[in-house]
Amino acid sequence: MTTTDGLTGVASQVTVLGLGDMGSAIAKVFVNRGYRTTVWNRTASKGAPLVEAGATAAATAAEAVAASPLVVVCLLDNTAVEQVLGSVDAAVAGRVLVNVTSGSPAQARSNERWASERGAEYLDGKIMGDPPYVGTPNIVFPFSGARRAFEAHESTLRVLGSVEYHGEDPGAAAVEFMAQVAVAYELLIGFLHALRLVQAEGVDVAEFAERVAGSLGAYPPLLTSFGQAVKNGEYGPDLGSLDVQAALMDDMISHRESMGVEAVRMREVKDLMDRRIADGHGDQGFSSLFEVITKRR
Amino acid sequence: MTTTDGLTGVASQVTVLGLGDMGSAIAKVFVNRGYRTTVWNRTASKGAPLVEAGATAAATAAEAVAASPLVVVCLLDNTAVEQVLGSVDAAVAGRVLVNVTSGSPAQARSNERWASERGAEYLDGKIMGDPPYVGTPNIVFPFSGARRAFEAHESTLRVLGSVEYHGEDPGAAAVEFMAQVAVAYELLIGFLHALRLVQAEGVDVAEFAERVAGSLGAYPPLLTSFGQAVKNGEYGPDLGSLDVQAALMDDMISHRESMGVEAVRMREVKDLMDRRIADGHGDQGFSSLFEVITKRR
Repeated sequence: MTTTDGLTGVASQVTVLGLGDMGSAIAKVFVNRGYRTTVWNRTASKGAPLVEAGATAAATAAEAVAASPLVVVCLLDNTAVEQVLGSVDAAVAGRVLVNVTSGSPAQARSNERWASERGAEYLDGKIMGDPPYVGTPNIVFPFSGARRAFEAHESTLRVLGSVEYHGEDPGAAAVEFMAQVAVAYELLIGFLHALRLVQAEGVDVAEFAERVAGSLGAYPPLLTSFGQAVKNGEYGPDLGSLDVQAALMDDMISHRESMGVEAVRMREVKDLMDRRIADGHGDQGFSSLFEVITKRR
Repeated sequence: MTTTDGLTGVASQVTVLGLGDMGSAIAKVFVNRGYRTTVWNRTASKGAPLVEAGATAAATAAEAVAASPLVVVCLLDNTAVEQVLGSVDAAVAGRVLVNVTSGSPAQARSNERWASERGAEYLDGKIMGDPPYVGTPNIVFPFSGARRAFEAHESTLRVLGSVEYHGEDPGAAAVEFMAQVAVAYELLIGFLHALRLVQAEGVDVAEFAERVAGSLGAYPPLLTSFGQAVKNGEYGPDLGSLDVQAALMDDMISHRESMGVEAVRMREVKDLMDRRIADGHGDQGFSSLFEVITKRR
């Protein structure tokens, strides 16, 4: 990742393809920051508020791409990206495509090949945050792909929010996004199960939620230490030894079952603990479960 | 929960049963804070460092209980609690038992009945934190059970760390502990899976861990809003609509499978999303999955 400031003023002209909530927010920020902004959307009426704010609407995606050296693509999904880029085709030559549409690492790599074959540079970006936060530091854009293009346009991209560069592999931004979202989803689904449990016990769920929110401050150092443990393959008894934790898991599982609350995810954690203990590592801690997480082949 | 300060100096004499790492840390803090501290452990040698620091060692658990109005019980598990309390039996009359041994809500309720039948008051406590933090605000003790006993001894209990009172139900502290630990475990097991994924993609796991740690600051308001949504049964499109999130889940699952990383937990989240969408709520957000989390009957 680089924190070098790029050249400034390289792209005073910007095109945005796709004017859903996120694309519109992006185009609006560019307009407000003084960029000559060209917009295009399949349904042209979506561009009206932006044109009123000072953007120029192009009749076709190809025309929009021709208008600016930097083209931000923000569509519904990768199928839409392929359709729209297909309609642009050779007009993309010499442009820098910055695709922030959601999609997989493999799709990002495929899009990069498509652009490269037509003489365009490709950056893949993902968006961690909601449209109202575009233009503030509270939305994060991981980017990956052509380093030269990133460095040339970094100052323009920083207009949109906090920016990270994850390397030349165009799929890297999608990897980062998917891994971060997965952590969020697993935390949140665990949290919702805990709400079910405390509700079944007669606890006020909103008050419990506030206590969990308050306890999150303890996690950043824990996650950092887990990352180091995994990197070095050296596992201390974090959160206590697995021998002790497995006994606690049994209590937690039987409690959930006694309350009629789903325990399948807890049982899976317990299975991982049992496997690690069976491997002779009951003296190690939770982070050592990394070693028994299945990599199916 | 109460934040009222209790009477001070009620228990200048304290007994601690069980001198493992946690029990020893508790006894040590009482000694250091000037309490006349009586200790007992099945293996008497564990008490030597505490006696050197100023504690008094009792020959039997019954003798230790007789020495102080307030008795903190910190043993290996509830089986040990039952054995030790069985040996004390009638000598517990008139005492306040504060049991911070790990165990289930049902065990806490059973211990309370046992104490009540013998004329003792019972508080159940759980410990969220490690022994080195005893005596600092960075360790949290949820308590529940006899309110009068809690209020009378609150100032003494606050010597040990941050203290919460969760109500008269003796099982409430164990409920809080298990629900909080469950959230932690689900976050951490999801995090370890994400480390597997990014490692398979060639990303530095320690650097990724630091980025996740940095992103946790966004979660407290999210958890609080989820708690409110669940309490009120009013679910906005938090994290986007489920229709959009389900499509992202498909990408995430197929990415994991393509990298040979276990995806079973992700598929379970997707199943919950599909069920909620099938119920006609694809316009709602992640928090609405609460409604489809199984309560088995």
